[in-house]
Amino acid sequence: MTTTQTQPQVQQWTNLAQQLRVDSIRCTTAAGSGHPTSSMSAADLMAVLMISYLHYDFDTPKLPNNDHLIFSKGHASPLLYSMYKAAGAISDEELMTLRKFGSRLEGHPTPALPWVDVATGSLGQGLPIGVGVALSGKYLDKLPYHIWVLLGDSEMAEGSQWEAFDHASHYKLDNLVGILDCNRLGQRGETELGWNTEAYAARAKAFGWNAIIVDGHNYDEINKAYAQAIQPNGSPTLIIAKTIKGKGVSFLENVNGWHGKALSKEQEAKALDELHPNVRSMTFPVQKPENKQPAPLPEKKPLELPRYELNGGAVATRKAYGDALKALGAADPEVVGLDGEVSNSTYTEEFAKTYPDRYFEQYIAEQQMIAAAVGMSVREKKPFASTFAAFLSRAYDFIRMAAISRANIRLCGSHAGVSIGEDGPSQMALEDLAMLRAVYGSTVLYPSDPNQTAQLVAEMAQHDGIVYLRTTREKTPVLYGTDEKFEVGGSKVIHQSAQDKVTVVAAGITLHEALQAYDQLKDQHVLIRVIDAYSVKPIDAETLITAAQETGKLIVVEDHWPEGGLGDAVLEVFTEADGPLPQVVKLAVQSMPGSGTPAELLEEAGISAHHIVQAVRALL
Amino acid sequence: MTTTQTQPQVQQWTNLAQQLRVDSIRCTTAAGSGHPTSSMSAADLMAVLMISYLHYDFDTPKLPNNDHLIFSKGHASPLLYSMYKAAGAISDEELMTLRKFGSRLEGHPTPALPWVDVATGSLGQGLPIGVGVALSGKYLDKLPYHIWVLLGDSEMAEGSQWEAFDHASHYKLDNLVGILDCNRLGQRGETELGWNTEAYAARAKAFGWNAIIVDGHNYDEINKAYAQAIQPNGSPTLIIAKTIKGKGVSFLENVNGWHGKALSKEQEAKALDELHPNVRSMTFPVQKPENKQPAPLPEKKPLELPRYELNGGAVATRKAYGDALKALGAADPEVVGLDGEVSNSTYTEEFAKTYPDRYFEQYIAEQQMIAAAVGMSVREKKPFASTFAAFLSRAYDFIRMAAISRANIRLCGSHAGVSIGEDGPSQMALEDLAMLRAVYGSTVLYPSDPNQTAQLVAEMAQHDGIVYLRTTREKTPVLYGTDEKFEVGGSKVIHQSAQDKVTVVAAGITLHEALQAYDQLKDQHVLIRVIDAYSVKPIDAETLITAAQETGKLIVVEDHWPEGGLGDAVLEVFTEADGPLPQVVKLAVQSMPGSGTPAELLEEAGISAHHIVQAVRALL
Repeated sequence: MTTTQTQPQVQQWTNLAQQLRVDSIRCTTAAGSGHPTSSMSAADLMAVLMISYLHYDFDTPKLPNNDHLIFSKGHASPLLYSMYKAAGAISDEELMTLRKFGSRLEGHPTPALPWVDVATGSLGQGLPIGVGVALSGKYLDKLPYHIWVLLGDSEMAEGSQWEAFDHASHYKLDNLVGILDCNRLGQRGETELGWNTEAYAARAKAFGWNAIIVDGHNYDEINKAYAQAIQPNGSPTLIIAKTIKGKGVSFLENVNGWHGKALSKEQEAKALDELHPNVRSMTFPVQKPENKQPAPLPEKKPLELPRYELNGGAVATRKAYGDALKALGAADPEVVGLDGEVSNSTYTEEFAKTYPDRYFEQYIAEQQMIAAAVGMSVREKKPFASTFAAFLSRAYDFIRMAAISRANIRLCGSHAGVSIGEDGPSQMALEDLAMLRAVYGSTVLYPSDPNQTAQLVAEMAQHDGIVYLRTTREKTPVLYGTDEKFEVGGSKVIHQSAQDKVTVVAAGITLHEALQAYDQLKDQHVLIRVIDAYSVKPIDAETLITAAQETGKLIVVEDHWPEGGLGDAVLEVFTEADGPLPQVVKLAVQSMPGSGTPAELLEEAGISAHHIVQAVRALL
Repeated sequence: MTTTQTQPQVQQWTNLAQQLRVDSIRCTTAAGSGHPTSSMSAADLMAVLMISYLHYDFDTPKLPNNDHLIFSKGHASPLLYSMYKAAGAISDEELMTLRKFGSRLEGHPTPALPWVDVATGSLGQGLPIGVGVALSGKYLDKLPYHIWVLLGDSEMAEGSQWEAFDHASHYKLDNLVGILDCNRLGQRGETELGWNTEAYAARAKAFGWNAIIVDGHNYDEINKAYAQAIQPNGSPTLIIAKTIKGKGVSFLENVNGWHGKALSKEQEAKALDELHPNVRSMTFPVQKPENKQPAPLPEKKPLELPRYELNGGAVATRKAYGDALKALGAADPEVVGLDGEVSNSTYTEEFAKTYPDRYFEQYIAEQQMIAAAVGMSVREKKPFASTFAAFLSRAYDFIRMAAISRANIRLCGSHAGVSIGEDGPSQMALEDLAMLRAVYGSTVLYPSDPNQTAQLVAEMAQHDGIVYLRTTREKTPVLYGTDEKFEVGGSKVIHQSAQDKVTVVAAGITLHEALQAYDQLKDQHVLIRVIDAYSVKPIDAETLITAAQETGKLIVVEDHWPEGGLGDAVLEVFTEADGPLPQVVKLAVQSMPGSGTPAELLEEAGISAHHIVQAVRALL
């Protein structure tokens, strides 16, 4: 790799950079909105990268050894799309569809375009996701591709960035390069650190990174920085480029108030005149990567799930998750484990101990954990990430964005609900079902039994999108035989008769309360139907509708706040049903819990067997 | 302040530290669970703090000039509660109720105890909240109190910590002291950085802090560090204390596998024997602070809300939020503004420009923004924090914990739903109603009109708990006169007649679609009832039940995913009513949006006037 550029090289970089600026202005002016100035500051950085360092086959976006270019500052999408045009991947005509209804060129990049790995636009996500891709590259694929992440300076205030800095150095990700477009101006004025590039460098170094400060409009400095960044030295590199927002056009350069504004046609003409590009629609070929394949994996094997005998024993569903994940690991070498420093509680440690090469400790950094899973999904791994269900709320924005990224990730949240007992409300997930149901295309599962859990873990591996499994801390009785079948969208009717007066719908811990209530009511000669709604989303509408028709009244009981959980999932069914509607009563956690035994807290919350019996009797 | 301790001082510190260790063991053994070893590592640090540096009046927890002690490592609650006993605030008998049902001494601290400012237990929150208290102390109260935050080393992996480091130095918070109990061992083994105290120091310094490394069991070093930390030099201080988990008991010291485990009665006896405390239930008086009052505030004034004339004009509700917040600022000097670097979009800039002394820019750090609001609520300010509604998802864990903290914070999320148009899904909040409804005791408001928005902003100031207002990007017609009244829990029936065939329930942007649908249907001689359900939680049950009785069928239309939003809020009403559910049809966003005009996206999402008309006709 030569670091002294030749004159023709400089001319090429210049030509590309100016074309990118021109196109960033043209497409935003055509759209009437967008971010030309945030694109222009990074045009030189991207021109050198694209011509001299990026290795990417635009005809084969899924080529295993392709580099990955992530625009963490997703609002600079005009620049990215202009690069796609310059690479010959899209036409000028398509570029001009930016932000228009039906166009693949959305306001912020999404995988609607085959060259976009992940959706960005919520700032501070590109680098943590880049860490996930880089972990895949270095430790799973074992391929030499690089991950280039274009960062904005405003987004360096996001804590998630520092989770990424921390993890990238911990895992020695020298295949990861952050390119910080330090243009000083945020949306509403100067950023916190302005052009204090030294401060960024000090922070990066303190977190174990190489840091290189450059003038982001000096090709020689940019070129040397990239050349240095790709030298493998066991550390990731941050290139801190001092840039000028709106660079290249006098009335835009370093002027506050131009964030996220398109130029008028008149201003566009003036700007293009100033930029006087040598070329307008030239194609700049991008180097293809070496044709290398990922490290070979062992053969897939038939899955042998753990089996729990129906002998009166009790097993926590979190333990069954751990057992099943380990079994899945044996069967499928693409399964990867992640956990947020609680693997001895979630039982992901079973997998971690058996498959240390496919387990990546994420420490207490839940945002990074989800981002790592998303990054691994980009490289077509099957990540399973776990922590206490309550702490998944820390990463909700990442989960939301993962859905926009069309990522395939599997999440397990343990320690759900008041039934965890003494630790108190900070550790109790009481909103996780609401949170995960309200994710586009998500699947939400909540088992009550270890055999069921094991089968649902196997199902998770087969399902795309965001798949969530909620597990329980406490040991609960084995309910189902080892040969019983469970599937996404299914349910189990545990008790039913022609005399059922009421249907009780439960899942997870409350199913066991419902079964106790059944026994007590039976002793009182009252029969109820009991449905195990282990698939919360999608829910088994048919079974619920039948139960409504046959019993008229439904009680839904859940260890969750009343809003957004199983109760609302059941109600949803009856917004789509034709015909007579049932009476539905929701039993859910209505007051702030404290500490206590699981039994005391279930009783206090109004979701114990005792309360179910009362609720049934009130409906008779 | 002398930094050379006398022999009696050392003896006192030793006596207290050993008593704290003994009590931390005793109360956890009595509970059968909890975290004795994580308490023991920090006992010396807390003993010196409590005897020699903390200024706190336990009889008057709300005394304005009290110091604030926040246990960010909330699992060390046995140590905190043992300190309360040592201070004479609780009895030994109460200490032994730890983790028992009904006890104020929960597994993790909550404000059930009057000396606990905020709930902790979700790691990485104490320091960002401490920043909020410190902002109040330095800039609002202008009082000399200190904020002491005890930090665990595992939690330093949370990005939120670095948002706090960043903001604390930016705001020169030299009243804030972080005490890092670096005991090397996390829940499942060694932490990421182990005893690498230099790495922590380098990171803190790079973020603009003073950093002092000490042996956390050497009283002289601890004492000197505190003395140095309280010297005002314009920067916050991190004391990095190398400690030993389980310090003082041979079989617990630095042994993995003892995290979160109580000792048996036998082990307890052995441990207490080793600790051979000089005192067992001695009271150690804590110094009271100087009796100073907060900086005087101007008189409250009558609130003069902005008024928007019903003259066919259009005003975005986000703009009305900005206008009303400014008006509120004029009336109430306790109102404080916070925003995540988008104040020109949320319109909080109206307040920021007028009241710069009460506005604190939080840059793009949403977790820190919520935490700052919580910290200000501790000091009884009235914080209003705003960003794009989509990005509040970044801080969901902080909002969840704020409810456990009994904090009073007001949140505004702008740019809700697909109606924002061209920017695309990353910027569209489509899960915020689900997220905020599933927060204990929350209030959720969603206005459609500027006069309504203004009145609801005034209501927000009067309401406790987590109060959320959702605003719209687009300008929408003024619907209501300036004298119309709106309140939390209310609704408006805009159209009704005895001939109504269907009721359409809407809020915010979709209300305008519903009104268009009304006009179109009226032309077709079909009358519908239209309800503006601007108070999503609590919702106006009475009006909805009446509408259901009178029209039989309800259509709920919302710019949100189908899960957890207005539709579910409406359904909830009918689970509490006697009798079967009415027929309810939900119109909500069912597919992943892209870019487009607001009108195109509302149509594509199936929530436009056209779709409402279709849905009504399908029900006839």
